[in-house]
Amino acid sequence: MAERVWERFLTDQDKAHLATRPAKRRGFGAKPAVLLIDLYRWVFGDKPEPILESIKTWPGSCGLAGWKALPHIQRVLAKARELQIPIVHMTGLDGAGVEGWSEARGRKNREESPEERDRLRRRYDIVDEVKPLPGEAVLRKASPSAFWGTPLIGHLNYLDVDTIITCGESTSGCVRASVVDGTTYRFRMIVVEEGVFDRHESAHAMNLFDMNQKYADVLPLAEVLAYLDTWKAAREPRSATHGNGEALTANI
Amino acid sequence: MAERVWERFLTDQDKAHLATRPAKRRGFGAKPAVLLIDLYRWVFGDKPEPILESIKTWPGSCGLAGWKALPHIQRVLAKARELQIPIVHMTGLDGAGVEGWSEARGRKNREESPEERDRLRRRYDIVDEVKPLPGEAVLRKASPSAFWGTPLIGHLNYLDVDTIITCGESTSGCVRASVVDGTTYRFRMIVVEEGVFDRHESAHAMNLFDMNQKYADVLPLAEVLAYLDTWKAAREPRSATHGNGEALTANI
Amino acid sequence: MAERVWERFLTDQDKAHLATRPAKRRGFGAKPAVLLIDLYRWVFGDKPEPILESIKTWPGSCGLAGWKALPHIQRVLAKARELQIPIVHMTGLDGAGVEGWSEARGRKNREESPEERDRLRRRYDIVDEVKPLPGEAVLRKASPSAFWGTPLIGHLNYLDVDTIITCGESTSGCVRASVVDGTTYRFRMIVVEEGVFDRHESAHAMNLFDMNQKYADVLPLAEVLAYLDTWKAAREPRSATHGNGEALTANI
Amino acid sequence: MAERVWERFLTDQDKAHLATRPAKRRGFGAKPAVLLIDLYRWVFGDKPEPILESIKTWPGSCGLAGWKALPHIQRVLAKARELQIPIVHMTGLDGAGVEGWSEARGRKNREESPEERDRLRRRYDIVDEVKPLPGEAVLRKASPSAFWGTPLIGHLNYLDVDTIITCGESTSGCVRASVVDGTTYRFRMIVVEEGVFDRHESAHAMNLFDMNQKYADVLPLAEVLAYLDTWKAAREPRSATHGNGEALTANI
Repeated sequence: MAERVWERFLTDQDKAHLATRPAKRRGFGAKPAVLLIDLYRWVFGDKPEPILESIKTWPGSCGLAGWKALPHIQRVLAKARELQIPIVHMTGLDGAGVEGWSEARGRKNREESPEERDRLRRRYDIVDEVKPLPGEAVLRKASPSAFWGTPLIGHLNYLDVDTIITCGESTSGCVRASVVDGTTYRFRMIVVEEGVFDRHESAHAMNLFDMNQKYADVLPLAEVLAYLDTWKAAREPRSATHGNGEALTANI
Repeated sequence: MAERVWERFLTDQDKAHLATRPAKRRGFGAKPAVLLIDLYRWVFGDKPEPILESIKTWPGSCGLAGWKALPHIQRVLAKARELQIPIVHMTGLDGAGVEGWSEARGRKNREESPEERDRLRRRYDIVDEVKPLPGEAVLRKASPSAFWGTPLIGHLNYLDVDTIITCGESTSGCVRASVVDGTTYRFRMIVVEEGVFDRHESAHAMNLFDMNQKYADVLPLAEVLAYLDTWKAAREPRSATHGNGEALTANI
Repeated sequence: MAERVWERFLTDQDKAHLATRPAKRRGFGAKPAVLLIDLYRWVFGDKPEPILESIKTWPGSCGLAGWKALPHIQRVLAKARELQIPIVHMTGLDGAGVEGWSEARGRKNREESPEERDRLRRRYDIVDEVKPLPGEAVLRKASPSAFWGTPLIGHLNYLDVDTIITCGESTSGCVRASVVDGTTYRFRMIVVEEGVFDRHESAHAMNLFDMNQKYADVLPLAEVLAYLDTWKAAREPRSATHGNGEALTANI
Repeated sequence: MAERVWERFLTDQDKAHLATRPAKRRGFGAKPAVLLIDLYRWVFGDKPEPILESIKTWPGSCGLAGWKALPHIQRVLAKARELQIPIVHMTGLDGAGVEGWSEARGRKNREESPEERDRLRRRYDIVDEVKPLPGEAVLRKASPSAFWGTPLIGHLNYLDVDTIITCGESTSGCVRASVVDGTTYRFRMIVVEEGVFDRHESAHAMNLFDMNQKYADVLPLAEVLAYLDTWKAAREPRSATHGNGEALTANI
């Protein structure tokens, strides 16, 4: 693999230490699902703009990083739909009368303009580019992790999933928290490198490093797509006359 | 206290055993909240009818038991609103694309009539008699316990609650599961005896017994209301001229 | 099936209601584990005695009910070991400096006799009859449910378990709480009727009713053993010359 | 505050973005506890050595970073004991027959030397410098977060804690995971900057950044100690003749 995005942030001592113990690959399992985290309006804004520009209207914006990730996420989503892999969309819990996990850290109750109110109203709308289709799971959370305060673990167990392919934002926030919890629940966690993004370049890179080192396989999109095709092929009936493919499929 | 509702279900040996070790009272704490569990259309139907009648149209109905409990629950709710005690309404999670916890146990996918579809559409609507007011928390769950798959524990911790006053249904299902989890999280659990109900008389009585024996104080409505008034009085400024009551209230 | 143990506790209305909607069977899944809950000294005492006798020295005793269940539990355990099914033993968390979930309900700090101290010291020792073998999981909990405050869900996911066969005590306490949580996590829960016990006859019966109605298949021992044999046979290589059984086994 | 340890890792764009929105302080609450995470032999080894040296015998070592943090952690611990603030020590769960969360990522089952076996046997021993005293809570975990698979949340709720002061390792692993979960449970999370450490310098710095930005107040030791003294003073009776301090104390 070429140089990883985090390498320029490592110190010399870090590099020397890592040379003695390369990150282990965990590998894919037998039954994948796709988890799309927080792809909502609040972090995109209404159009692609550099972050220092976009935050003037959308304070939670990740700038161009999000818009660049979108086509890659769309490819993961299209592949999952094609192969009928379970898809879970996460977004924020709103209007439930409970404060979010970050509310206590100083969000204002100041007067809002009509434009601000409109943006707040739309903040947890998943953007059209990756909009859930009817029947796909959409869960709402009030915490960084997709697992906390949601029935996600029950849903994945019900589907007998063992591998979670993750896209979304932010790399250093909800993606990281969800990946840690996924590993904790003993899923095989896969992070699509081009499919996650953050509002800070250094945090993006270093959280990919942490996840790859400890909790997940951080892989390029191409490798994830190739795995999914191989995975599907292995589950197809080998031929119309063979027929023991169904038993295998049923086993998964 | 007069004879409890469960006594007629106990065996002689049970009574002899219990005579040697009466249930302990846990007592109220310093900061109560009210938790109303699953007071939705599915268990009431559209009008009061005996259960063997009502289940012909509303298969999940609890019959008259629910309608009898409603005025008592309304008194708890009114008191909580009067005293500005936090209120949490629970109902079912619907339309999220995840199966409920009981789905795997054989719910049909058979053809439904328009009337059935209408009832299913309304099944998790909280009934008008105890309808949430704007600002009151409304959480949706996909499991028996109000704590599982919801941000309830975070919300209660945020509010510094230590005592949970519970009403709702069913005594043997979601109420019981929520009370066990509440005790597990080390809250003081209070069950309002007239405010919980079930579709089975024996299960109602015996789950009250279990909860009172192990997890909660199962109390008559009057005692709960009296506690709340006393609690509030203790937090009032002692007199208009004293005025250090506000600091105390803020402390709680 | 013959008359169930709970039927004599049901009211006429309950029976009429239940006649219209019999409990559904959930069925076994593809990968079972055995969960033995709280088979520790505290509930057995040192010898079989009627409960009204045994509680004079062992206040938490379940009397003869526990000793009668033991041989049945031993058969489940022996079968699980024979078939190499994962086994998890639960017991109480002690000496960790955290209060148990029931401590707040009035346990005394009074002076204890040397005999009492000895019994307290041994209270969470799993009894010899069902003693864990090296390598079997032993988890310690501070709550009714085997899932709460323990890594049980991670362990079962790691092993890809989908079916949990439950024995232990008390039917109305830790067994019930664990079964509710198991169903919540979307496992198929099986309760071995002869392998669970309680200190109250009515609570034992009615909690079996509740579990069978809502959360689990409550089955006679013979049926569970028969399933396990069938399950194993289906995973054996069909013949020595066939040899594709190993792949199947590895898949599970 | 002087330059923070993470600033040299930030990109220019990150700095420009952060200049527009400084991290908010959350502040201390009313009832603190101290949480010491994974201060066990495995990350210290038997003596202070530079990391590239120490990993030759202790592969999980954090090198000198851990030994440098120890005196600071000892000061936090001494202050907590002096002020009778609850203390919780976390370490690894061993010998329970369940695999750790990282086991699946490639730990070998190769032959171990007697020295290696000795080190593995001692790996989760909390080091003498911060050894738990009798009565202090010691919880064992099988996951990064101190909250997962342990009764920690119940214990903290029981004690009515609202503020958690955190020390330990690793900054990018178990400390980070525990801080995210603590915030999720709506505690006020405080990280003692000199009291946490990591095996990678860049990951240490950037995880402090992430935590300070999103989840916690990352504070110098001196500030934490000053808060604790102030906190205690505010809870002392103002004078022997006043006496309404007790009520305040009881309120906390």
